[in-house]
Amino acid sequence: MTRPLRVAMIGYGFMGAAHSVGWRQAPRVFSLPEAVEMAVLVGRNAQAVADAAAQWGWQESATDWREVIARDDIDIVDIVTPGDSHAEIAIAALEAGKHVLCEKPLANTVAEAEAMADAAERASARGVRAMVGFTYRRVPAVTLMRDMIAEGAVGTVQQVRAAYRQDWLVDPAMPLAWRLQKEHAGSGALGDIGAHIIDMTQFVTGQTVERVSGTLETIVTERPLQAAGSGLSGEAGAGTGTVTVDDLAIFTGRLAGGSLASFEASRFATGRKNALTLEVSGDRGALAFDLEDLNSLRFYDRTAPEGRQGFTQILVTESVHPYVSAWWPAGHMLGYEHGFSHQVVDLVTAIAAGKEPHPTFAEGLSVQRVLDAVERSSENDAAWTPVAANVLTPSR
Amino acid sequence: MTRPLRVAMIGYGFMGAAHSVGWRQAPRVFSLPEAVEMAVLVGRNAQAVADAAAQWGWQESATDWREVIARDDIDIVDIVTPGDSHAEIAIAALEAGKHVLCEKPLANTVAEAEAMADAAERASARGVRAMVGFTYRRVPAVTLMRDMIAEGAVGTVQQVRAAYRQDWLVDPAMPLAWRLQKEHAGSGALGDIGAHIIDMTQFVTGQTVERVSGTLETIVTERPLQAAGSGLSGEAGAGTGTVTVDDLAIFTGRLAGGSLASFEASRFATGRKNALTLEVSGDRGALAFDLEDLNSLRFYDRTAPEGRQGFTQILVTESVHPYVSAWWPAGHMLGYEHGFSHQVVDLVTAIAAGKEPHPTFAEGLSVQRVLDAVERSSENDAAWTPVAANVLTPSR
Amino acid sequence: MTRPLRVAMIGYGFMGAAHSVGWRQAPRVFSLPEAVEMAVLVGRNAQAVADAAAQWGWQESATDWREVIARDDIDIVDIVTPGDSHAEIAIAALEAGKHVLCEKPLANTVAEAEAMADAAERASARGVRAMVGFTYRRVPAVTLMRDMIAEGAVGTVQQVRAAYRQDWLVDPAMPLAWRLQKEHAGSGALGDIGAHIIDMTQFVTGQTVERVSGTLETIVTERPLQAAGSGLSGEAGAGTGTVTVDDLAIFTGRLAGGSLASFEASRFATGRKNALTLEVSGDRGALAFDLEDLNSLRFYDRTAPEGRQGFTQILVTESVHPYVSAWWPAGHMLGYEHGFSHQVVDLVTAIAAGKEPHPTFAEGLSVQRVLDAVERSSENDAAWTPVAANVLTPSR
Amino acid sequence: MTRPLRVAMIGYGFMGAAHSVGWRQAPRVFSLPEAVEMAVLVGRNAQAVADAAAQWGWQESATDWREVIARDDIDIVDIVTPGDSHAEIAIAALEAGKHVLCEKPLANTVAEAEAMADAAERASARGVRAMVGFTYRRVPAVTLMRDMIAEGAVGTVQQVRAAYRQDWLVDPAMPLAWRLQKEHAGSGALGDIGAHIIDMTQFVTGQTVERVSGTLETIVTERPLQAAGSGLSGEAGAGTGTVTVDDLAIFTGRLAGGSLASFEASRFATGRKNALTLEVSGDRGALAFDLEDLNSLRFYDRTAPEGRQGFTQILVTESVHPYVSAWWPAGHMLGYEHGFSHQVVDLVTAIAAGKEPHPTFAEGLSVQRVLDAVERSSENDAAWTPVAANVLTPSR
Repeated sequence: MTRPLRVAMIGYGFMGAAHSVGWRQAPRVFSLPEAVEMAVLVGRNAQAVADAAAQWGWQESATDWREVIARDDIDIVDIVTPGDSHAEIAIAALEAGKHVLCEKPLANTVAEAEAMADAAERASARGVRAMVGFTYRRVPAVTLMRDMIAEGAVGTVQQVRAAYRQDWLVDPAMPLAWRLQKEHAGSGALGDIGAHIIDMTQFVTGQTVERVSGTLETIVTERPLQAAGSGLSGEAGAGTGTVTVDDLAIFTGRLAGGSLASFEASRFATGRKNALTLEVSGDRGALAFDLEDLNSLRFYDRTAPEGRQGFTQILVTESVHPYVSAWWPAGHMLGYEHGFSHQVVDLVTAIAAGKEPHPTFAEGLSVQRVLDAVERSSENDAAWTPVAANVLTPSR
Repeated sequence: MTRPLRVAMIGYGFMGAAHSVGWRQAPRVFSLPEAVEMAVLVGRNAQAVADAAAQWGWQESATDWREVIARDDIDIVDIVTPGDSHAEIAIAALEAGKHVLCEKPLANTVAEAEAMADAAERASARGVRAMVGFTYRRVPAVTLMRDMIAEGAVGTVQQVRAAYRQDWLVDPAMPLAWRLQKEHAGSGALGDIGAHIIDMTQFVTGQTVERVSGTLETIVTERPLQAAGSGLSGEAGAGTGTVTVDDLAIFTGRLAGGSLASFEASRFATGRKNALTLEVSGDRGALAFDLEDLNSLRFYDRTAPEGRQGFTQILVTESVHPYVSAWWPAGHMLGYEHGFSHQVVDLVTAIAAGKEPHPTFAEGLSVQRVLDAVERSSENDAAWTPVAANVLTPSR
Repeated sequence: MTRPLRVAMIGYGFMGAAHSVGWRQAPRVFSLPEAVEMAVLVGRNAQAVADAAAQWGWQESATDWREVIARDDIDIVDIVTPGDSHAEIAIAALEAGKHVLCEKPLANTVAEAEAMADAAERASARGVRAMVGFTYRRVPAVTLMRDMIAEGAVGTVQQVRAAYRQDWLVDPAMPLAWRLQKEHAGSGALGDIGAHIIDMTQFVTGQTVERVSGTLETIVTERPLQAAGSGLSGEAGAGTGTVTVDDLAIFTGRLAGGSLASFEASRFATGRKNALTLEVSGDRGALAFDLEDLNSLRFYDRTAPEGRQGFTQILVTESVHPYVSAWWPAGHMLGYEHGFSHQVVDLVTAIAAGKEPHPTFAEGLSVQRVLDAVERSSENDAAWTPVAANVLTPSR
Repeated sequence: MTRPLRVAMIGYGFMGAAHSVGWRQAPRVFSLPEAVEMAVLVGRNAQAVADAAAQWGWQESATDWREVIARDDIDIVDIVTPGDSHAEIAIAALEAGKHVLCEKPLANTVAEAEAMADAAERASARGVRAMVGFTYRRVPAVTLMRDMIAEGAVGTVQQVRAAYRQDWLVDPAMPLAWRLQKEHAGSGALGDIGAHIIDMTQFVTGQTVERVSGTLETIVTERPLQAAGSGLSGEAGAGTGTVTVDDLAIFTGRLAGGSLASFEASRFATGRKNALTLEVSGDRGALAFDLEDLNSLRFYDRTAPEGRQGFTQILVTESVHPYVSAWWPAGHMLGYEHGFSHQVVDLVTAIAAGKEPHPTFAEGLSVQRVLDAVERSSENDAAWTPVAANVLTPSR
């Protein structure tokens, strides 16, 4: 038997908790081709990261990620830090020969993402794998959606409708967290949740977004400064500051296959908590997904007999559905964090098989380029703007 | 007791059937302040219009609308012809002193709509009323939505999301009806169903659309020619022709209050039959409507106690709800055509009271101007385009 | 052309309004084989019935139903009085050679219903038709449910689940209306709304209920007396009285095919306004209907491919669906009262064709016998009780 | 710091997997007052149990549960074997001073359950805790339902409607598993899934079921014998055998507070996979839960303003909701197995606090007595049958 794959995770915020569930559960629920060990948790605050490591079950903690990626006993580096540090850590880890799982979005800028994709390509030649953490691809209903589109269930894609709507900024008293400042977060609703619907659209349709026309908006522009030392949910302190990222992004994309896709990323959709919806319409049928009803996939089959057609709510909890057989019997619901286990399954399986896991860094870069094009379109009066490198077809 | 109001209806297609239900039912279900009579049905084909009049219960039929509007015994002219004849008939009827109900959209061009609005303004000074047939305003749930927003239920509007999705053009074998030819129909999905969501947005928010950025698309550009003499659902004949109107319109609007609104009008939303959805989000709550579930209005109240918030499905079938007390007990559903009865109620009530019914021709013109701006934006690379005369505020 | 069928309607309460819509709309929306005329409306209070006749469009009014059914110019008698007068009027009308439409439930007692069914059978031999007004059979989705079960869509029926839930008695201040007194109403929730789900179950499955075990309950037993002269929604007056009918009925039935069916009729289902739900499960599939979503029928097809099964929401608004082609395009919703038009269509069509319309009085009697058996079971400690005459098979 | 609580789990089927998730996740996601260790997994087949222990993360495995419960280093015994061994193991473990978590139903017979409850009571006096594994109590929406009823959200309970519907026996080719044989399983749908809805009803209302009237049914009575060595999903072998347990149970209960509750447990509800639904109606409101939509709780508030009432879909994913703050942000869904973590949290918390965890064995016994009364009622022509010891009030 081979030595287990030993994982170091850099970062320990909300995503750290979610990734930890994945590393903890996947080997116990699925039959992995390689054993994995939660070896080291890395963060800057020694006490805090030690506490988190103890809580989540990492064997040890450390404060210097460079030292950790230099260790011989580490095989996989999982990056869940804020976006501005992704490039540096990921590239260093890949160059050190570590497989890398990097949380989305791949980076804060296209330039960083390009460097990362280059590094991943070079690493791949040496058998080192890189993967971006768009975990929603691994919600079973989303994977099934991709599979059914690939099998022709909707025929030729003619229209796509995607939205990711939350409401946590509706309250104007919500303080000015780092996520609302461009210098730290890079982008707002667009980069954080818009990235998901771009990736998911490209994933399920198998088509890239080639051109975009869009508008970014900051609905509440001044917010209370955060009190010192408070986290994301921290109390407001004295004074106010300016929100420098978007909190609403509305854009239209042209897919490589020629169809239009509408996108909305909003943090002002009052009452919508995590409403990622995606509908793909084609000449043979349609498929619709809603993350607030994540065990279902709705399928309209235009080839069904006349008068018997309608949206079929497929409960994606049967053993024939993607990832499900390792879990529970039909009708037993899966939740948000199951995708993180599936991500570990796919990454470890790819490593063991010597194959490239998806989404690749190149796919993460592709999303980054779309985000960038949306920003440029918004700055240019919503003009249709080509997505660098994604463009395959002449403009209409 | 006064003489009944006698109605002449010009046109007898699908909308003629729906308007006939309104004229037939309203006086029998509601207590109208004036009696009404279904006097004359007007159409060009003498036999066909006589048959329709007999079927629908009009006292007589006629073939020359000019003669009919010249008659002293006609008080109201109801226009349900295709859009290219609206202006001529409506202006003539108003000048002849007849109250006019004109089916939406008001006209095929802004110029026509302007002339109609002018005529309506002049007529109003003489006590002659004009109304546009945006009947969806009178679905009880939509009226309630307007009322609740006016009462402050959502607070300040921060985002609007509107869509009207159908799928009757998905079949590429669907022949080239007149509705798919610009010279006859003026516009495609945008003008036909997009007009509804523009009007409904302006109605429920009380805010006009001031600027737009949008894209029009024709997904299937060549279709079989219709066989001679076949109607909307006619068999395909020999040869093909070019579709010259849009079948998908995606646009973003800036409302007078400053918020963004997204719009989609599609005839390629596979499986969606008549899916008009509208969601208005504000800082105190949100309201959501779906025409495929037309007896419901969903309300999210951000002022409700923490942990008890959620979308409340108000079944708009109680006697305290708009228009409902004249119908059935709570829980007894209303359908599509009830709005046409409500339209008659409101028109006759306004005439009797000497007041202006809504939507006025000026409101119809406002919608027309938005449609026009969307077309111009689409032709100009989706650039943000001001809506003539609707613009109240400086551009952001 | 033949003389129109002239209708006299006896009674003018809520059901009178609903039946009037049917008589008014059906000839204008459908192509009836015979013309119909709304001739006479009959009630005991001369002024009130004259007012109702004028409002609803009946040509004249009268106060003596015996005189009216003796008239030569009346062809159809439509009975919408309280149940205790159904037998007398219906039998007299049938003997006078009038076709009869009698609102459900057929009668207040089995004996009355038997006499009515006998009279109907005799009348049928003379070409005189009788029909019970279980209009929910004619909601298109319910008719489609029957058709699909007949076609084998669910295979062998193995279980049925039916409920009719309202909440208008939850308020203990709701006064003691005649509907809550056994001497006038005969029965409570069981007879009024339970009758619907029994008929609908027998209709869609084609199987009678043979045996029942059930419990009747009166949740609020004392209520304020109604103030004199107030109607159903009248204010409470002085004093209280005893509710002598059930307001909740829960029973289980054994169908002729051998399967069990559960039934619930409740007026204490808080928040449920008119929630008639019916689900039929078989070895090949299942069908589910909900009156609060009356344009939909949900179909689960066990023969669909594995992993693609689910409940399909068929929007029963397409021209191929029962009754729909006379109305609107796909996706345009029908409401509660459309069933009353369909009832007129089917009655007039049967009269013209010289055929028996359904539901026959014998079918109405069958429902009455089930109601009676439930009452007897409830009085007998919920013991399984045969339904007289419906029993075809030996007890298990 | 104290020594961790060390757990031995007896049994390793489907429930073993689910309980293992609870033991694995709870200490990593919640802050438990005591550490826990997954010490020993016990089963009869040495190789199989060793494999399961390795897969699920138990430190060691064993084949003799008696030896294990005699060990000093074991603090908690978790029993997930079939029901016929619960009593022996649980009583022995309690007498050995081990805290016990016993999967539901508590036992196969009332006599066993009584002995277990007695043993638990004796153990409690020595500080040893016992808990039954009705984990659905710990779905956050169910816990919230209990809390809201306790706070008066529905007022006085007037009606309850409970159902648990699955469809895995619809296929007549499904072989005769041990669960379908009375000698092994004790009961069928009634004992397996009916037990859940009885417990949940008693839990959320705080009222016991005092009397029942019910009918048990076996829809498919002959099934293929299972091939030797095949598990639950095993292939059919040669010959057929008789199903000796119910596959459908329909019963009505009288709660201690006086209201009626309807119950259905079915394995023939075609298309329903795990459809546990519970609705509690009262004079101030109603609450409704559906396990296939387990993150939602629907609340109807009769005290809300007229015309604004409706069922509010509370998404039970906010930090103020039970158990949720340890998991993810609002709108991030939980799944089936989260209840098993919550069960561990509550058990360990109770042990640390020296308090009794719920549901107690006495509560499990109460459910067992209801099941028993339903069986006796069914054998006695559905006669109303008192539930031994649960009866507090005189019969109506």
